[in-house]
Amino acid sequence: MRISELSRATGVPVATIKFYLREGLVPEGVRTSPNQAQYDDAHVQRLRLVRALVGVGGLSIAATREVLGHIDEPAQPTLDLLGAAHQAVAPELPDDVDVTPAVALVRRWGWSSCVDPVEGTSGDGIDLGVAGLAVALAALDDAGFVVEPDRMDTYAEAMMRVARAEIDDLPTETPSAAVRYVVLGTVLVEPVLLALRRLAQREASVARFPPAAPHV
Amino acid sequence: MRISELSRATGVPVATIKFYLREGLVPEGVRTSPNQAQYDDAHVQRLRLVRALVGVGGLSIAATREVLGHIDEPAQPTLDLLGAAHQAVAPELPDDVDVTPAVALVRRWGWSSCVDPVEGTSGDGIDLGVAGLAVALAALDDAGFVVEPDRMDTYAEAMMRVARAEIDDLPTETPSAAVRYVVLGTVLVEPVLLALRRLAQREASVARFPPAAPHV
Repeated sequence: MRISELSRATGVPVATIKFYLREGLVPEGVRTSPNQAQYDDAHVQRLRLVRALVGVGGLSIAATREVLGHIDEPAQPTLDLLGAAHQAVAPELPDDVDVTPAVALVRRWGWSSCVDPVEGTSGDGIDLGVAGLAVALAALDDAGFVVEPDRMDTYAEAMMRVARAEIDDLPTETPSAAVRYVVLGTVLVEPVLLALRRLAQREASVARFPPAAPHV
Repeated sequence: MRISELSRATGVPVATIKFYLREGLVPEGVRTSPNQAQYDDAHVQRLRLVRALVGVGGLSIAATREVLGHIDEPAQPTLDLLGAAHQAVAPELPDDVDVTPAVALVRRWGWSSCVDPVEGTSGDGIDLGVAGLAVALAALDDAGFVVEPDRMDTYAEAMMRVARAEIDDLPTETPSAAVRYVVLGTVLVEPVLLALRRLAQREASVARFPPAAPHV
């Protein structure tokens, strides 16, 4: 199909497709004349993926390119792969954040792989996620918002339940399928979880604070 | 204290404090001369709160002003308050999103307050969160990333567990305390949950894929 048809099939404007082509996020089509090229279903799929990562995923063009690179050329063993996927989609973190409170929490839950080196993998053991948790905890502290330890435990248990289900289902047939699953699962499921939390809060608060009986 | 001391106490640059003053996010100090004013501890607290909302919370100046307005002048009954807090911190959503799949999921879980009108509250019943869920589901679909129904149930159960703990602890002494709790809890706990999910994924994957024994 031509670029105009590719645009119609995906809802992505032609100018945006050209931008993605220039940025190397979408592979070139097969050139049929100096200023015309043919695209196929693989381009449709790729464009949809890019739109999801840039749109809801909120990734920058550079981060999207890195994520696509991991999907196109997966090379790491499974555990390093998870680290690479997380790194690609990690928010920018200040490097002066104090990780002590985050490390203490993670140790209390016995999540030692997040803070101690794991044999057979690269890295010093302090997972990037620990820095992410440290930044989030510092913001709570800054705002004077106290989360009691048992609430933090509830959060940890709920997220471990989520993570176990996700890792149990990790496809292991091909490295490419595994990377795709980890990268997309990390980026695209986050908005789902946050939306569900808000809906659940509404449902839970109606149960706790039943609306007053209507005035008759 | 002077503005320079306020800056030292909070780590927020003087120019940024002046910007927040102009934008009405931080109340004026008590003027002691035409170009000098005195600030107190309340300013320190407010500045920290603004920094948390704008920084980790990722809110725009306009959204921050709205959130602070809800904290300063809470007026709604508790359930509408939750809606107002959610609305203030909700991402911009396209208005052409198809909510059908999201409504079907929410109904399946019996979260009827999210989709049916609740007596005694304003609104037509379709919670803003349903649109958020619809956008997130559309992105999964776009990327060709399938989340099986039982996985979605796991997500919903985990987030309901989180939400129940949060709503159970909602302070009800004063409306202001309740609004502060809801608004800050919504914005500032999201990064905590996402960081915990990533850490839990790492821990769960080490358990599922034990690293190879070291080569001796």
